[in-house]
Amino acid sequence: MELNEFALWVKNRVNSFMQARLDAFDADAPALKEAMSYGLILGGKRSRPLLVYATGKALGASDASLDYAAAAVECIHAYSLIHDDMPEMDNDELRRGHPTVHKKFGQATALLAGDALQTLGFEFASDKNSGLSGELRGELCAVLAKGAGFSGMCGGQAMDLDAEGKHIPLERLRVLHSKKTGALIRVAVAMGAVCADADEKTKAVLDEYAALTGLAFQVWDDVLDVIGDTAVIGKPAGSDEGLDKSTYPALMGLEEAKLYARQTAQKAQDKLSLLSLDTSILKAFAEFTVSRDH
Amino acid sequence: MELNEFALWVKNRVNSFMQARLDAFDADAPALKEAMSYGLILGGKRSRPLLVYATGKALGASDASLDYAAAAVECIHAYSLIHDDMPEMDNDELRRGHPTVHKKFGQATALLAGDALQTLGFEFASDKNSGLSGELRGELCAVLAKGAGFSGMCGGQAMDLDAEGKHIPLERLRVLHSKKTGALIRVAVAMGAVCADADEKTKAVLDEYAALTGLAFQVWDDVLDVIGDTAVIGKPAGSDEGLDKSTYPALMGLEEAKLYARQTAQKAQDKLSLLSLDTSILKAFAEFTVSRDH
Repeated sequence: MELNEFALWVKNRVNSFMQARLDAFDADAPALKEAMSYGLILGGKRSRPLLVYATGKALGASDASLDYAAAAVECIHAYSLIHDDMPEMDNDELRRGHPTVHKKFGQATALLAGDALQTLGFEFASDKNSGLSGELRGELCAVLAKGAGFSGMCGGQAMDLDAEGKHIPLERLRVLHSKKTGALIRVAVAMGAVCADADEKTKAVLDEYAALTGLAFQVWDDVLDVIGDTAVIGKPAGSDEGLDKSTYPALMGLEEAKLYARQTAQKAQDKLSLLSLDTSILKAFAEFTVSRDH
Repeated sequence: MELNEFALWVKNRVNSFMQARLDAFDADAPALKEAMSYGLILGGKRSRPLLVYATGKALGASDASLDYAAAAVECIHAYSLIHDDMPEMDNDELRRGHPTVHKKFGQATALLAGDALQTLGFEFASDKNSGLSGELRGELCAVLAKGAGFSGMCGGQAMDLDAEGKHIPLERLRVLHSKKTGALIRVAVAMGAVCADADEKTKAVLDEYAALTGLAFQVWDDVLDVIGDTAVIGKPAGSDEGLDKSTYPALMGLEEAKLYARQTAQKAQDKLSLLSLDTSILKAFAEFTVSRDH
């Protein structure tokens, strides 16, 4: 299957799966429910679910178990976007061309929607209906918590806050992004592997792939922020620059950053060749991260 | 052991346990780490950890496993207080006589500290070092997620937002509080029971106890808000009234509300008599909920 076709299959599948869970919620807090649903839809591309399914399917995990893992990591991603857009953080009014959650539902509901989506992520990860053993469900939660919390995504966001208006060294930028963006990409791949109960050696190779892909993804994001335009990427081009944030192009030059992203994506693909598995989708995803225009 | 003595033992134990985890965090995001630690300390009374230990010890669970469960539920409680105090929610500048997290660290860091404490809750619940089986760790996460999310605490907070400035019927107030406050009290008792791998019948009785105790706790909180004073309860007395919130005393009268709280606490204790266990601490706690002056 081609990457585009697989991505569409993932998007439809995980969206239906998540929406069914939200639809089953009680009617006590309709605004919160709507804001959670809206925030999940705004998330958009489903890159992290794609990595869950692509990894898990390559290793023989059941689609049913991957549904729970994919929904779990996407809920964490969606919550982080909602909170990140809020006035006290990036103060963004638009995401992918639509009003952000706090613009549409107010700040209090946006705060709660983010909170409840984080919880929902762990509800999915621990859900017995995934058909996974208790051991593997516990492992899914542990992997997700480690990547989402202080040592991962939240820690990276705090480093990002701290870096605003400062020029930070390249090495700190790398750590910042490995936590802020990279951690959840690694979580997605790791959760796919947990669903298949993969051995430690396979997990380690996949984690190297994921770390490199995450890095390539972030460097390319910085590149796009310089060369993209508002219509395509859905936020004002140069917006990170406007906040005087450190970026890869700013620190290493635009052409160097492009080359670095492409080389990193290639390294990620090379790692996968160590595995005797059909990892064509994962390879195509790494390639995509440094060829996309949004 | 007396309740007071037990409460002190719990407080010291869970505080040291949580602080040790925070101390082991890396140095990449010091402000976030400090805000998380401060937010955890502001939480204060450790009522939920007390319920975890009291339940688990009555059933024979190991103290080590209860450390993880108690820390997990307390992290969720602490995160909810941090976010609840923020300007878009209750806009409180003081908690227990100290500046709230956003007053001390800024709104962005407070938002992230809440987020990261929620994640840390699930990190504790899923941690292999608890010595619990994967099955039980998965169950801890599932119980915690259900009580903390849309169907529990977050949903209750959304109902609370929606109720501001409105007069809501008593039945909706009861549902609101059963979610906003009651759910996490039930989680605490349920997690203690999970650590002991208790049978379903025992869990059901304990859950009835917890639901009644949670209700008594909330009704008494509303009572204290009318009769307490700022120095003792750490927030301006009558602050809920000031926001024109529905409260039990407002809906049923002060004396009726006191009586209702005491009867409910008695019912909670009666439930425990169905179990052939030493539940003296749990009984004393139910009694305490309706005799405390803060």
